[in-house]
Amino acid sequence: MPAPPDVDDLVARAREGQARAVARLISLVEDTSPALREVAAAVAPHTGRAQVVGLTGAPGVGKSTSTSALVTALREAGRTVGVLAIDPSSPFSGGALLGDRVRMGDHATDPGVFIRSMASRGHLGGLSWATPQALRVLDAAGCDVILVETVGVGQSEVEISHLADTTLVLLAPGMGDGIQAAKAGILEVGDVFVINKADRDGATTTRRELRSVLSLAERPEEAWKPPIVLTTATRGEGVDDVVAEIERHREHLEASGELAVRRLRRTRREIEAVAIAAVQDRFGHLRGDDRLDSLAEQVVAGESDPFAAADRLLDRL
Amino acid sequence: MPAPPDVDDLVARAREGQARAVARLISLVEDTSPALREVAAAVAPHTGRAQVVGLTGAPGVGKSTSTSALVTALREAGRTVGVLAIDPSSPFSGGALLGDRVRMGDHATDPGVFIRSMASRGHLGGLSWATPQALRVLDAAGCDVILVETVGVGQSEVEISHLADTTLVLLAPGMGDGIQAAKAGILEVGDVFVINKADRDGATTTRRELRSVLSLAERPEEAWKPPIVLTTATRGEGVDDVVAEIERHREHLEASGELAVRRLRRTRREIEAVAIAAVQDRFGHLRGDDRLDSLAEQVVAGESDPFAAADRLLDRL
Repeated sequence: MPAPPDVDDLVARAREGQARAVARLISLVEDTSPALREVAAAVAPHTGRAQVVGLTGAPGVGKSTSTSALVTALREAGRTVGVLAIDPSSPFSGGALLGDRVRMGDHATDPGVFIRSMASRGHLGGLSWATPQALRVLDAAGCDVILVETVGVGQSEVEISHLADTTLVLLAPGMGDGIQAAKAGILEVGDVFVINKADRDGATTTRRELRSVLSLAERPEEAWKPPIVLTTATRGEGVDDVVAEIERHREHLEASGELAVRRLRRTRREIEAVAIAAVQDRFGHLRGDDRLDSLAEQVVAGESDPFAAADRLLDRL
Repeated sequence: MPAPPDVDDLVARAREGQARAVARLISLVEDTSPALREVAAAVAPHTGRAQVVGLTGAPGVGKSTSTSALVTALREAGRTVGVLAIDPSSPFSGGALLGDRVRMGDHATDPGVFIRSMASRGHLGGLSWATPQALRVLDAAGCDVILVETVGVGQSEVEISHLADTTLVLLAPGMGDGIQAAKAGILEVGDVFVINKADRDGATTTRRELRSVLSLAERPEEAWKPPIVLTTATRGEGVDDVVAEIERHREHLEASGELAVRRLRRTRREIEAVAIAAVQDRFGHLRGDDRLDSLAEQVVAGESDPFAAADRLLDRL
C-alpha cells in the first residue's frame, strides 16, 4: 500500500507553482481517493481569486484552437492560466491530431500555465462531478484565469454556465448556428459570444443574425449586454479583444455585485451535489444489504409503489 | 378550490379503457399534484403487463412517421397501444406540421390507442421525471405495448434505454449515422435497429456499416443479437417486420429471465430518483431557512469546504 499523500505539503508546493503538485492534487480529487476531503479542506482557505471562464460551442467551431490562442493572449497580458479540458475531442484530453497536441505542448512547458484534461461523464461531454473540485485546486494554485473547455453537446453548456464566472459561446459562420444556438438555449448562458473562423464567408451574416436574436432578450438597463467578438483563432486575430471582454465582464461582475451572487449560487449547487452523492452512496450501501432490491421487487410485483418504497428507503437513512 | 379527484373511480374508468380518465390520471402525475402519490398507489396493483418500447434517433430519421406506422401495425395485430411522445418536434407533442397532426388524428379516435405528449426536461428532449409514472398509468390502463418516442439528442437515448424493455434505434441512410451512432453510444442501447427511408440511396451501405460495427461487440453465445430492419415508414413498408422483432425481443426477454432483471433495475432507479427528489425537496426547505445560504457563504469565504458543508447539511435532515 502506498503511503498516504502529504496533502499539506502538496498544497504548499502547488501554491509555489509546482505543476506536478497541482497535477497530483487534481488526481486526488478526480479519483475520489480517501484524500479527497482532506484536499478540499486544505485548498479551501486559498480559493476565491480565480476567474473561471467556460468555453463552449458545437463541434467544429474551433474550441481547442481558441483555447490555445486565449492561453497565449492571457500569458502575454501577464496572467497565470489554468486549463481544464472536458471535451473528449480536445487535444488537451488527448483525442485530437498530433499537430494540435504539439501546438498545445508549447503551453505545457510554460510554468505560468497548468493544463489538465478530465474525463467527461458518459459519452456526451457532460461535466464530471470532480470538475468543481479541480477548479478549486487550480484556484488555490494561484491561477488568475481558469479556462474550462467543454464540447457543446447535450447539457454541458448549461452545466458550464452554472460553474463559470464568465461563459464564452463559440460559433462559426455557415453552420446554421443562429438557429442552433436559439434551440439549445445557449443564448441565455453566453456572457461573451465569439464568432470564430471570421475569415470565412458568412461571418458578418452570423453576427447580424446573432445580434438580432440577442436584441430580443429583455434586459434591465444596467444589465450586461453580451458582446460579439470576431476571431480567427488559427492566426490569433481578435483574441486580444476576447481577453479584453473577459476582463470587462469580470469588472462588471464585481461592480454590480453579481460575482458574489454567482459564486454563492455555484457553491450552493456544489454543496447540494456533494450531499446528494453522499445520500446516493448510502443507498448504494443499502443496495448491498439487498434492501433496495427487495423494495424494487415489491414495486415490480404491484405490492407497493415507487413513492411508498422511497419513503421506506429514506426512513432507513 | 376544485374538489379533489376521485382517484379510485378514475383508475376504474381507465381500466375500462376510457381515454379521458387515462388522460386525467397522467395529468395528475405530471403536475406533481397532491394526488400524485394516491395515483401511484392506486395503479400499482394493475401494472406489469405492458411492454415498454423506446424509440430514439437523430432528428430527421422519421421517428414520428415510424411511431405512427408502428401504431397502425400494432393495432392490426390486435394490440392496444399507448404512445408517450417526449420529442418536442413530434406531431404528438404539437410541434410539427398540420399534415402530420391530421395523420396522427386518425389514431386519436381509435379507442385502442392512448396518445400523450409530455413536456421534455429542458431544451434538449431529456425525459421528464414524470415519465415513469405516466408509463405506470398506461400500463394499468391495459396497454399491451407502450411506445415512448424521444428525440435522440443529449442523453435521452441512454435514459430511454433505462426505462424501456425494448429500445428501437432509428437511423436513416446518408446521415453519417454509422459514425454518429458509435459516438453517441446508441449502439450499446439498441435492441432493434431500424434503417428508415430505405427507399433512399445508401440504405444498404448504412446497413453494412452498422452490421460491421455491431459485429465488433462481444456478446455471449446466448445473448440477443440486435437485428437490423429496413423500413419506409411513409409507405408502411417493413413496419410489420419491426413489430415481429419487438415481439421476438419480448419472448427473448421472458425466456432468458432478462425481463425481470431489467424491470427490477428500472424500478430500483425509479425508487432512488423519487427518494433523491424528496431529499432535494428537504434541502429546498432548508434553503428557505437560509441554512444552505449560510453554509455556501462560509465555503465562498474559504472558511469551510463543500464536503464539510454537505456533512452539516445532512446532519439536519
